[in-house]
This record gives sequence, C-alpha cells and structure tokens, in this order.
Amino acid sequence: MDTWLLVGGIAALLTTFGFLPQILKMYRTRSVEDVSPVTFIQFMAGVGLWAFYGIHIGDAIVTVANIVTFGTLVIAISLYAHFGGFFRRSPRCS
Amino acid sequence: MDTWLLVGGIAALLTTFGFLPQILKMYRTRSVEDVSPVTFIQFMAGVGLWAFYGIHIGDAIVTVANIVTFGTLVIAISLYAHFGGFFRRSPRCS
Repeated sequence: MDTWLLVGGIAALLTTFGFLPQILKMYRTRSVEDVSPVTFIQFMAGVGLWAFYGIHIGDAIVTVANIVTFGTLVIAISLYAHFGGFFRRSPRCS
Repeated sequence: MDTWLLVGGIAALLTTFGFLPQILKMYRTRSVEDVSPVTFIQFMAGVGLWAFYGIHIGDAIVTVANIVTFGTLVIAISLYAHFGGFFRRSPRCS
C-alpha cells in the first residue's frame, strides 16, 4: 500500500473523529462548563463550507469526511445544550 | 473574485482557527476541568500528519493551514497543563 495514502488516511481519520474524546468526556461527566460552544459552532460553519467545497471540486473524501465531522459536532453541541451549557452558570458548587 | 475560492478560504480560516474560542475561554476562566486533552492531542497528531501530507503533495495551503492549527493546539494543550488539567481533579469547590 502507498505510504502517503496511509499517512493521508490516518490524518483524515484522526481529524474527522477529533471531537469524539470531548463528546465522550461530556457524556461521562455530564459537565460542560469549561467547554467552548463557540469552537463547536465555528467548526460546524467551517466543515459545512468544506463539505460544499468538496462537492464543488468533486472530491468524495473531502465531502464525506466533512459531513461526518459535521455530524459529530451536532452531537457535541446537543450534549452541550443538554447538560445546560447555554443556560446554567457555575452550578457545580451549589 | 471566484466565489468558490472565497468559500474554500472562509472554510479554511474557520477550521484553522477553530480552537481559538476554546483557548480564550480557558485563558479567561482559568478552568479546564471539562475540556478533553485527548481531543487536543488527537488533533495535533492529525494536523501534524496533514502538514506532512501537504508537503508531500506540494500544496502550500494544506501545509501552512495545518502548521498554524498545530501551533494553536500547542497553545491549547499548554494552557490545559498550566491550569492543572493533568494533575488536579475537581478543585473548584475546595
């Protein structure tokens, strides 16, 4: 197998599923106070545009990888909202 | 200006600096307990490989964008360590 194809493939897998550890940590601890929702929203806008760009240049890998990342970010921002990130402030010590 | 060049450019800017809001939040609150360092480390490995891949395919944008992202992640993981993310657990209510 082509070594560089492997390098690109591993790079794509690592970044496509890069928010998975943060999602698992939010799910496990049910605590999201220190997490930045702006980072999630900014990445959603970014990978959304990347997906459109992938469709435009006809590159299936760019398109699919960014749609998958967008999906993980929908889960991330939903968990953030579910655990009160948008509404509560410092409830941990109450 | 070519609309698609603009779409790709904005997409690249949004994702390259996607961790900036998280960095600013950690810096402002000095609190990192809910942040996943594994997400930072996974992205560092991913964008590091992307940068090598960019050099291999001779694409300056892929190379530079991923090196810049790698730099933001070095700042992110350093702040995480500085604010005790690796050593302290639940110090907020002490």
